[in-house]
Amino acid sequence: MSNDLPLPTADDIAAAGRRIADMAIRTPLLENPRVNDRLGGRLLLKAEPLQRTGSFKFRGAYNFISQLTPAQRRAGVVAWSSGNHAQGVAEAARLLQTAATIVMPIDAPAVKVANTRASGAQVITYDRIKDDREAIARELADREGRTPIPPYDHPWIIAGQGTIGPEVLDQARTMGAVLDAVIAPCSGGGLSTGIATAVKALSPITQCFAAEPAGFDDLARSLAAGTIQRNAHLTGSFCDALLAPCPGTYTFALARRHLDGSLVATDEEVGAAMELAFREFKIVAEPGGAVALACMLNGRLPIKGRTICVVCSGGNVDGVLFASVLSADRRAAV
Amino acid sequence: MSNDLPLPTADDIAAAGRRIADMAIRTPLLENPRVNDRLGGRLLLKAEPLQRTGSFKFRGAYNFISQLTPAQRRAGVVAWSSGNHAQGVAEAARLLQTAATIVMPIDAPAVKVANTRASGAQVITYDRIKDDREAIARELADREGRTPIPPYDHPWIIAGQGTIGPEVLDQARTMGAVLDAVIAPCSGGGLSTGIATAVKALSPITQCFAAEPAGFDDLARSLAAGTIQRNAHLTGSFCDALLAPCPGTYTFALARRHLDGSLVATDEEVGAAMELAFREFKIVAEPGGAVALACMLNGRLPIKGRTICVVCSGGNVDGVLFASVLSADRRAAV
Repeated sequence: MSNDLPLPTADDIAAAGRRIADMAIRTPLLENPRVNDRLGGRLLLKAEPLQRTGSFKFRGAYNFISQLTPAQRRAGVVAWSSGNHAQGVAEAARLLQTAATIVMPIDAPAVKVANTRASGAQVITYDRIKDDREAIARELADREGRTPIPPYDHPWIIAGQGTIGPEVLDQARTMGAVLDAVIAPCSGGGLSTGIATAVKALSPITQCFAAEPAGFDDLARSLAAGTIQRNAHLTGSFCDALLAPCPGTYTFALARRHLDGSLVATDEEVGAAMELAFREFKIVAEPGGAVALACMLNGRLPIKGRTICVVCSGGNVDGVLFASVLSADRRAAV
Repeated sequence: MSNDLPLPTADDIAAAGRRIADMAIRTPLLENPRVNDRLGGRLLLKAEPLQRTGSFKFRGAYNFISQLTPAQRRAGVVAWSSGNHAQGVAEAARLLQTAATIVMPIDAPAVKVANTRASGAQVITYDRIKDDREAIARELADREGRTPIPPYDHPWIIAGQGTIGPEVLDQARTMGAVLDAVIAPCSGGGLSTGIATAVKALSPITQCFAAEPAGFDDLARSLAAGTIQRNAHLTGSFCDALLAPCPGTYTFALARRHLDGSLVATDEEVGAAMELAFREFKIVAEPGGAVALACMLNGRLPIKGRTICVVCSGGNVDGVLFASVLSADRRAAV
């Protein structure tokens, strides 16, 4: 079905913005003068941990389900996800009175599984190594007539996540800022390419980057090769939200067209970025949510004399892991 | 000087709101449907950790310094504070190009001392038990011609902190909510009585409460006695921001007039509230910042079928302490 749809445009993203406006939170764009002083530039942090369900994923899920026909909504939806898409779909389904079944990895953070169930969704677990989650979900979709909601490679999902683009441009304007660049975390690429699609149309001078964890830099390597490249492993970064095996067909096409590149940060750098988000911005960032900040803090993109918007994409992290990050000696230099 | 001024009014608070509008952040009013479901009511959380300097104290400090004469600003200011007022004054002074000296307890959280210095203020430390911080500050004021900025008992400070009142009423309205009650943390009472002064004028049906840590419930006891009562101790709660010895003259007069009471929570309950703020709202609350939430979560005020706004007043907490709170087994029942 999705392969019949054209690539999403800035207009599609504007329409998605209107569709989700009453339900999604317009999360704040945070700024800290002390951090700016130390960086010698202006860092604007988009705080999507404060989004409904604790991550940006609600945007795409709500944009998707709200476009289903009444008959499709009655038949229900099915999704596969390491956790944030799961919660986004479950909550959007609850609000739109649609039954959701979610296929989640058995090692997903407990908080993500619990929250998915709390929104009323049915959860089915799978093994990241042995099982094919997409096959499990598609089989369910065929058997029960449910609509599958892909985590990233669908124009409606990409358009929903992309609504962050116009939002940060508008918020930056209110703050008297013109964005030199936007960096967004990247797993399958729905968020980073959605944002880039909107931003390049509305503010062509603004550069757009994805950010990936080291060892899971499939998009960076795909852009370099000109063809879709896969990650060597399916587990092994503590950025549990960013372990998609490769870019999607839609997201790769958009990445080649609109992204200026994909930056990479190590787990160690991500931990330090989480600590900075805690200490200076008072928000809870999960590992995958902090990877764009980690890239910025570690000089993957120069900020001196410039204004850079970093998307912090989610905050669904277990307390024990967060405590270990704060206890470890990994303060960012900033 | 301050004793010549009348009690602040809702009009004074509205004027303060206009004065700080360009510099203070209109912090978000957060809501979580999952938490609401469990409570059986509507909880709106005012996220002042996202305020400039990480707490509400910037509001009062900026409102105060911006009313000084050019000569007073040139002579500088002096304040005494366990940390949040220190940072608020230091940052407001920096923005208004005024030199600030801050008298801080030697056991203040390291992050609060570091941040006060980072705003360019001079820090002088004192011993909570042995020294009289107010005397040290007043001596400095006399010797150097600096204007003292009291932490709470001054109409300009109270009016600044009170700006949260009209803000939450307006934000609640946008969310289709009418507030049955507002609860705000209380040390000397500037925040809770400022909010109550505005709210009782703008929304007489809304109840207003202060919230204090157990053992430091001087306002609750003062309201019961009808005269100002002091705390037995000056240290001993982990709510380091809420250890003022007694209500002020202004704040007690306002409390008697506008507050419906002062609620009390234990340190254990405060720790569980911090964990809930982390897990469900993705914000960093310091102990003193979470005491109103702790009161609400522990039934000090019924929320079933009602809408209650809880002010989370600050997020300046050291990582090691925050990690210990997340690691301890003190989940809130909600």
